[in-house]
Amino acid sequence: MERKLTAILSADVKGYSRLMGEDEEGTLRTLTAYRQLIDTLIARHHGRIVGTAGDSVLAEFASVVDAVQCAVVIQTTLKAENASLAAEQRMEFRIGINLGDVMVQGEQIYGDGVNIAARLESLADPGSICISGRVHEHIKNKLKLVYEDLGEQAVKNITDPVRCGGWCWNPQLPPGIRFPLPVEP
Amino acid sequence: MERKLTAILSADVKGYSRLMGEDEEGTLRTLTAYRQLIDTLIARHHGRIVGTAGDSVLAEFASVVDAVQCAVVIQTTLKAENASLAAEQRMEFRIGINLGDVMVQGEQIYGDGVNIAARLESLADPGSICISGRVHEHIKNKLKLVYEDLGEQAVKNITDPVRCGGWCWNPQLPPGIRFPLPVEP
Repeated sequence: MERKLTAILSADVKGYSRLMGEDEEGTLRTLTAYRQLIDTLIARHHGRIVGTAGDSVLAEFASVVDAVQCAVVIQTTLKAENASLAAEQRMEFRIGINLGDVMVQGEQIYGDGVNIAARLESLADPGSICISGRVHEHIKNKLKLVYEDLGEQAVKNITDPVRCGGWCWNPQLPPGIRFPLPVEP
Repeated sequence: MERKLTAILSADVKGYSRLMGEDEEGTLRTLTAYRQLIDTLIARHHGRIVGTAGDSVLAEFASVVDAVQCAVVIQTTLKAENASLAAEQRMEFRIGINLGDVMVQGEQIYGDGVNIAARLESLADPGSICISGRVHEHIKNKLKLVYEDLGEQAVKNITDPVRCGGWCWNPQLPPGIRFPLPVEP
């Protein structure tokens, strides 16, 4: 069994089914445009898309720093894109990032590390990022992002509680704007 | 926007994260073997796999009858496979089937019809199948399967309640064995 240590990024759209139910063709147009942006940004940060299904994206990165930088740029870019849409058309992604030793089979990756990334994603606020404690350990001295410690979370169907953090506002922004902004390392 | 009416089959593993957490390599071995069976059965029933991610499979069929027959054969086959595994290693899929007019983009399909198939899947008991009322309308006189009407279900993030049915036991089996068996039409 081939294995490797990799940073796993899992993303999906908050309220995707609701958006589809309200406006199928408009939602697909926005999803397609946003997915093109996301795919481009993942490639630019040296990531690889492992799989996609509907509104969800799974990607992997050889570098934890690249994975987090990429997620921050994705959220910043999509926030700007959403600003030009009517409130009910806005599409916000949640992103979870984990670091794990995963099993490799062809182009696919499998294992607890992948599943935890998906759970972290579901803990993220729309438009924000939730990372595991392991990811935080690797980036805290490299990226000047404000990190909010969410403590240990019991994560559905995962045996051990996962230490995780949510992003967080830029210290230059008024408190309460809980949105990640990239700060150069 | 290209559209088409299609039968959508959505499947995933009940308790996948728990299984992965308990035994990563064993779970991946079983998943790989079961996915090979599922892929073969989908092709044999003239279906097409639209996408896969981890433990989930999305497929489409030009015929509603083919989609349901395929699901029944999948569940029957996997039940037999599971019988040779220790209880804690058994892997049970839930399957949801819907009929919907979906949007087509390249090899992908999108829309409410796809999302409802995924919701039906999550209503299915492990090892069983949940179909929408629309699917039932098309097959009830063609397939001699016992159908349990679950009535209208409020489905998360879907505006209108979805009429759905769960499968059901074969009348030749003792009551309580809620598992679908194929009965020739």
